[in-house]
Amino acid sequence: MLARAAPEVLRRQLRLYLVTDEGLCRGRPLADVVAAAVQGGAGCVQLRDKQLGTREFLAQALVLKSLLAPLAVPLVINDRVEVALACGADGVHLGQGDMAPEQARRLLPPHVFIGWSVQTLDDVARSASLPLDYLGVSPVFATPTKTDTKAPWGLDGLRQVRAATALPLVAIGGIHPGNARAVLEAGADGLAVVSALCAADDPGAAARVFHAQMGIP
Amino acid sequence: MLARAAPEVLRRQLRLYLVTDEGLCRGRPLADVVAAAVQGGAGCVQLRDKQLGTREFLAQALVLKSLLAPLAVPLVINDRVEVALACGADGVHLGQGDMAPEQARRLLPPHVFIGWSVQTLDDVARSASLPLDYLGVSPVFATPTKTDTKAPWGLDGLRQVRAATALPLVAIGGIHPGNARAVLEAGADGLAVVSALCAADDPGAAARVFHAQMGIP
Repeated sequence: MLARAAPEVLRRQLRLYLVTDEGLCRGRPLADVVAAAVQGGAGCVQLRDKQLGTREFLAQALVLKSLLAPLAVPLVINDRVEVALACGADGVHLGQGDMAPEQARRLLPPHVFIGWSVQTLDDVARSASLPLDYLGVSPVFATPTKTDTKAPWGLDGLRQVRAATALPLVAIGGIHPGNARAVLEAGADGLAVVSALCAADDPGAAARVFHAQMGIP
Repeated sequence: MLARAAPEVLRRQLRLYLVTDEGLCRGRPLADVVAAAVQGGAGCVQLRDKQLGTREFLAQALVLKSLLAPLAVPLVINDRVEVALACGADGVHLGQGDMAPEQARRLLPPHVFIGWSVQTLDDVARSASLPLDYLGVSPVFATPTKTDTKAPWGLDGLRQVRAATALPLVAIGGIHPGNARAVLEAGADGLAVVSALCAADDPGAAARVFHAQMGIP
């Protein structure tokens, strides 16, 4: 049994966190976009697709797992715990409408980490008693990528979350190189990015621009 | 660890097999419709919902599990292996777009049975090498309930499936009391019914009518 990555390793991997949206990849194969973004410095990849059937979703997960495992980049599966189990994912990301973290924890091997989206300070308060490895602060800014979310946290909200928990925080929603530094300064450990990487002309170059803005060599 | 039910027990439970569709329940709580149909003789219940988020789907599964377990009526989960694991379901039903049966088998405890929808004779041929407990012959007749299916098998097609496999066969699609007997005579072990039970004025009475037509006392 693999041990779970140490918290400081996970925190570093989460710094630039690609969340996939195949519909934003402009016809390019998802694996190509992921490979480029990782080459450019994305340290963690979440496969997210609420449309695909289980078979196709798992097929994509297996492709990404075989791409990422040799690079020691963790693959996180959004929502679907059975897909995470079947592909040997490193993590699972759960939203408020997904399986409860306690239930997912019972089904997953101990080395698989769990992230959870928080949309309110009540969620943050509840997170203290849940078996979680990081929180997704969602959305930080308004975003067209996800439309089922609550009001954006903003930087002030992010600061409040930071003050309320010691868990690693990944900010998501409307993040681009221009606001990356401010989001980190407000307390995020990592930036989760969808369109600014998936839709970029060159996802690798886009990842490097994020790194430069974030002060990562 | 529970043993899996003996094949003859499963075959009997599958004879009248309710597949849920909350949208057809005319505003009645799904659990009430299920309870009535089981009271009337349905021997197996499949929870099927391709719209609900994981959390709500699992909540429904837990309600049905607590209803059905004391009655020794198996609960089958459509597609979502993680929901089956989390609710302690007795079976999983997989379509051609769901997880492959071999993969599901690896994730599920040995006592959980697996059904698989076959839409072509190629599927039936492949089923011989898969870890399956029954086949769903889908659709037997044209049906408005599911629109993503291939051409109906018809009774002749069902006879061909019967000749090609020894697995229990559950026929689904357009089944009502008027054709129940003919479907059994063509080789089905069980009838899977959606609208003829879910949408019935009295799902319990509707189940009893099926039983009478099927010659079950």
